[in-house]
Amino acid sequence: MNIAVDAMGGDYAPEVVVQGALQAAVELDMNITLVGNRKAIGDELKVNHDSAHIGVYHCEEVVLMEEPPLKAVRQKKQSSIRVAFDLIKKGKVDAVVSAGNSGATLAAGILTLGRIEGVERPALASIFPGNEGEVILVDVGANVDCRPMHLFQFGIMANAFASSCLNMDDPKIGLLSIGEEGGKGNEQVRLAHDLFRASHLNFVGNVEGRDIFSGKVQIIVCDGFVGNVALKLSERMAVAMSKMLEKEMMSSLAGKAGLLFGRRSLKKFNKKFDYAEYGGAPILGINGVGIVCHGDSSARAIKNAVKMASNYVKNNVQGSLSLKMADFHINMAQT
Amino acid sequence: MNIAVDAMGGDYAPEVVVQGALQAAVELDMNITLVGNRKAIGDELKVNHDSAHIGVYHCEEVVLMEEPPLKAVRQKKQSSIRVAFDLIKKGKVDAVVSAGNSGATLAAGILTLGRIEGVERPALASIFPGNEGEVILVDVGANVDCRPMHLFQFGIMANAFASSCLNMDDPKIGLLSIGEEGGKGNEQVRLAHDLFRASHLNFVGNVEGRDIFSGKVQIIVCDGFVGNVALKLSERMAVAMSKMLEKEMMSSLAGKAGLLFGRRSLKKFNKKFDYAEYGGAPILGINGVGIVCHGDSSARAIKNAVKMASNYVKNNVQGSLSLKMADFHINMAQT
Repeated sequence: MNIAVDAMGGDYAPEVVVQGALQAAVELDMNITLVGNRKAIGDELKVNHDSAHIGVYHCEEVVLMEEPPLKAVRQKKQSSIRVAFDLIKKGKVDAVVSAGNSGATLAAGILTLGRIEGVERPALASIFPGNEGEVILVDVGANVDCRPMHLFQFGIMANAFASSCLNMDDPKIGLLSIGEEGGKGNEQVRLAHDLFRASHLNFVGNVEGRDIFSGKVQIIVCDGFVGNVALKLSERMAVAMSKMLEKEMMSSLAGKAGLLFGRRSLKKFNKKFDYAEYGGAPILGINGVGIVCHGDSSARAIKNAVKMASNYVKNNVQGSLSLKMADFHINMAQT
Repeated sequence: MNIAVDAMGGDYAPEVVVQGALQAAVELDMNITLVGNRKAIGDELKVNHDSAHIGVYHCEEVVLMEEPPLKAVRQKKQSSIRVAFDLIKKGKVDAVVSAGNSGATLAAGILTLGRIEGVERPALASIFPGNEGEVILVDVGANVDCRPMHLFQFGIMANAFASSCLNMDDPKIGLLSIGEEGGKGNEQVRLAHDLFRASHLNFVGNVEGRDIFSGKVQIIVCDGFVGNVALKLSERMAVAMSKMLEKEMMSSLAGKAGLLFGRRSLKKFNKKFDYAEYGGAPILGINGVGIVCHGDSSARAIKNAVKMASNYVKNNVQGSLSLKMADFHINMAQT
């Protein structure tokens, strides 16, 4: 397997991205193709230890964080993110990982590889930690305005991802709303509720914001606006809470002692809520594998995103997703 | 001052609600009128110690949690929530606190007292704790589908609430979106952005989910769907995180010792993130004071909601809100 990493994408690119790619190559025994400016990458590779598993694919351009995604991807044919997806198309790599402009990563993935048959809107899936196991939230930012059918398809795609890649057996699906009754929520949610109800999915009904951590469901479907707010909120809240706890403990002698003894547990705990642990969000619904990472990804986040990419490939999520979409269209045609 | 408490509203009504009201009467030296079934309340008052500050106002009906709010409020003229707001209208109490059906509380408040002149949609404001001080999120559930003008008015109302009741001087306002640039977000947010930009409010632009805890702004405006998801998510996440931390610490000897020494700090910390600390969300924009509490409010939550109600009255938030709305309409007429 060979994973292309967009070496020019991210707030700390290429330095931190190359470090993460090297970690992945060494620790995960993975072949990595760094896509981007050869000189910038080369300098970084020299600083770090070289690896036999690392290749470099040169390109001239970069899509910047603040550029309008679609326009930039269309115009910059030699940008690292476009070239990376082209490498999938040419069969030279199996997946792409990027911490660059996430809209551009999405656009490049869709433009270059196309959508899986029947998929109207590819979506980003994010994994949340929880007391009762992991929860997938989809969409976390690819689609700000969704029709009910889009939400329903997110559910089908997340089901395929969860069962093929995360070993979730017939995962329970909930629709994010502001009340548990089917009649509650906005127009879009009420109509999507009916689509889920009529399907073969393991749909439990509407769930609320609290259910991301309640263990009631394994998959939560929402539009990309709400999902993105939820994702960013929870990431920051985890950091804020652990800072506030430390501050609170440092303010008393007993607390300080507690911190001294508990530091290791606290660290393990913080790691659980650190998004770097999951690395990135897979793009569900394109003909290939793309993982979207945070702009401020650490080397560890990049490494874990490569791991996610390789799991996605190994478990043939794309194949499973195609099958479920085909099933869905056959069922739709029959009714 | 006299605060009406809907004794029949809430998952643990009337027991816990009456307990909370008693706590408020004693600890805050407040006059409370318990509205609801005299017998049910009386039994509870006898169990607890009686207080000279507590009165009972009998009514026969209750709006149940699962009833459609508007219909129930219209039909059940003798329900505790309607009677409570009627008491404001008759000048017998200064505010209403309810942990009952929140849609019904909103509907009863709007129907009975009417909207402040110029306010198109009353909204629910919730206070979030944070590293850098408190943050108001508005709307957290009153309006699931909002027009840009509604969002803009939420900002004006929250500004009045923050400056008159929470001592925030010219609070910074952000519009919740999925990217910081003005062009990002959905249609509704893009148009609201322009309204804020053109106003005299201290508008800093779009903010993201993470900014609820970043200290970048003191007020975050969003529609009631997104706001409700964010509220429920953060409340549950706080509980989940502290449970997971405890579990993590209990799994090692050093962690157990840490927990022993740190328990007090941990408790203080948990309290900070406990919504009961704030009691409830005020309804901004009606001609009177109504505080909406969680269905599963504890006695402490009810007590703190009474405190919130009394601060709202004392600081004449309603007057300040009316003035700001009038200012806004004068400015609109001039442009």
